[in-house]
Amino acid sequence: MYTISDLQKIVTEELSQQQFVVEPKGLYEPIDYVMGMGGKRIRPTLCLAGCYLFSDDINKALKPSLSLEIFHNFTLLHDDIMDNADLRRNQPTVHKKWDENTGILSGDAMLIKAYQYAAKADSAHLKEILDLFSQTAIEVCEGQQYDMEFETRDDVKVDDYLNMIRLKTAVLLAASLKTGAIIGGASKEDADLLYQFGENIGLAFQLQDDFLDVYGDIETFGKAIGGDIVANKKTFLLLNALHLASGSLQSDLKSWINATDFNADEKITAVRDIYNSLKVDELAKEKMSFYFDKAIEALNRVKGRESMKEELRQFAVKLIERSR
Amino acid sequence: MYTISDLQKIVTEELSQQQFVVEPKGLYEPIDYVMGMGGKRIRPTLCLAGCYLFSDDINKALKPSLSLEIFHNFTLLHDDIMDNADLRRNQPTVHKKWDENTGILSGDAMLIKAYQYAAKADSAHLKEILDLFSQTAIEVCEGQQYDMEFETRDDVKVDDYLNMIRLKTAVLLAASLKTGAIIGGASKEDADLLYQFGENIGLAFQLQDDFLDVYGDIETFGKAIGGDIVANKKTFLLLNALHLASGSLQSDLKSWINATDFNADEKITAVRDIYNSLKVDELAKEKMSFYFDKAIEALNRVKGRESMKEELRQFAVKLIERSR
Repeated sequence: MYTISDLQKIVTEELSQQQFVVEPKGLYEPIDYVMGMGGKRIRPTLCLAGCYLFSDDINKALKPSLSLEIFHNFTLLHDDIMDNADLRRNQPTVHKKWDENTGILSGDAMLIKAYQYAAKADSAHLKEILDLFSQTAIEVCEGQQYDMEFETRDDVKVDDYLNMIRLKTAVLLAASLKTGAIIGGASKEDADLLYQFGENIGLAFQLQDDFLDVYGDIETFGKAIGGDIVANKKTFLLLNALHLASGSLQSDLKSWINATDFNADEKITAVRDIYNSLKVDELAKEKMSFYFDKAIEALNRVKGRESMKEELRQFAVKLIERSR
Repeated sequence: MYTISDLQKIVTEELSQQQFVVEPKGLYEPIDYVMGMGGKRIRPTLCLAGCYLFSDDINKALKPSLSLEIFHNFTLLHDDIMDNADLRRNQPTVHKKWDENTGILSGDAMLIKAYQYAAKADSAHLKEILDLFSQTAIEVCEGQQYDMEFETRDDVKVDDYLNMIRLKTAVLLAASLKTGAIIGGASKEDADLLYQFGENIGLAFQLQDDFLDVYGDIETFGKAIGGDIVANKKTFLLLNALHLASGSLQSDLKSWINATDFNADEKITAVRDIYNSLKVDELAKEKMSFYFDKAIEALNRVKGRESMKEELRQFAVKLIERSR
């Protein structure tokens, strides 16, 4: 009987067995570098979990599960170029360690490799797995497109934002679970329920990310990180605040957004105070709970191995109940 | 009974029916722009031809044929970023018309779309088509990697160069024909023979490109273009010349390569004279004929519709016998 932790170890072991580097090394070494950067391997682990809900044989989901991890890391590689990021997990990004052309081309090769791993799904499920993979992959691109567009738009609604994070991060978690479920022989209903579980957990997780940036670590460090506030990042909190604020709260908020010369800690404190006045912290927690509850409801309805359902419940709880 | 020209028209019509642009438009409009730039649509046409050799029903190859065209244009999009090219077919490149992030992301979406079209192959052939597509796609990346590396290496052999052009351009032509053949129900032998035909035609075509840059248009314009010579591009001609030259020819050639301040026409004339002395023009023509003959030999052995075999022979002849 596998736990999530067992499945994570199986994924890690399988990943370490892959030989990514062949000639020309200049193309493949960056792939090896990126895949070796570490990470919790959540997506392939969820894929194996999805399979194990319905089948004892998780091996048949192993290579497809890696396709999700390779794809995920490909998106990070290209996103880091687009965002001009110097570091990823405290290590130089590929375009910094090598150069931008390498970042683009090795990224392209990673996407192709992801498809090669996905195509190892058994023939009975191949078409469905590939269609899900492609649909998900293009949705992630759409999410990234919206994310980039939102930076310069001033008419972004909260629902636009929720759709953007759904596409950019939640659908891949959803597809990871559903891929495993399909391979495990799940019914259409159960596969879709797992997709819903993953999508809602993804949304809850991203909202938690937004929340923790402002309210996290207060007990541990006495102050939050506040990078999103400093950068005027259009998060759930800021978008709701802009929507709800009126009068002096609205003008204060706008002043802080437009300020060019300011003390970071001052801005963080001031904006957080505005958030508190407007109760957007509570809004965020309510929305997080809303998505979490939807996720658990969907999971509960799945007709699958009860021990793994419980593992997934605990996984969801741990994901959403991080330090605050 | 279809001719190559008929098949090209069918491809063009099918392509015009595709609706690439959906929301977010910022992601998809560049795809539409690139696909609308024109071109002879050689790859999807060869795919239909490969199918028609063995089957009356070319419709089943239509969507997969477009995957090859979308993939080809994706490589041009990303290559233009890597090469810092301002123009493609006399129109602004995507990263010039929009920006580099758009070039990267819309290119990624194009690669995914290419896979979506490839996955429309019927289930009996799906795995084989996808494996061929992925293998070819990654080989094209390898070819591009070698091409970039060769720019700064001074130990590039003629065989290295031939392998680079094989990967960068010939394998896609080969895979286009083989994809159609597989869908048309060809035997493994015939599918592989068509791959060989395409690969060898691709090699002959690229060598012709190298040759024409130095020797083309002399009759029409009184002079060749010579851009490869000016740029010290490691072509078949230059690499053979470097290998064969000794004494003063070797030192003259090296001087022209290292010259920073020179008259372009003078350099072109001088280097061409060196090529003539070393007879690398004849070497190029011999190699071109060698690949062309190998291509035709492979095609002749194919057990398929004779009228389409003849169409492909004529196509090959036209491709290789351009103005000189």
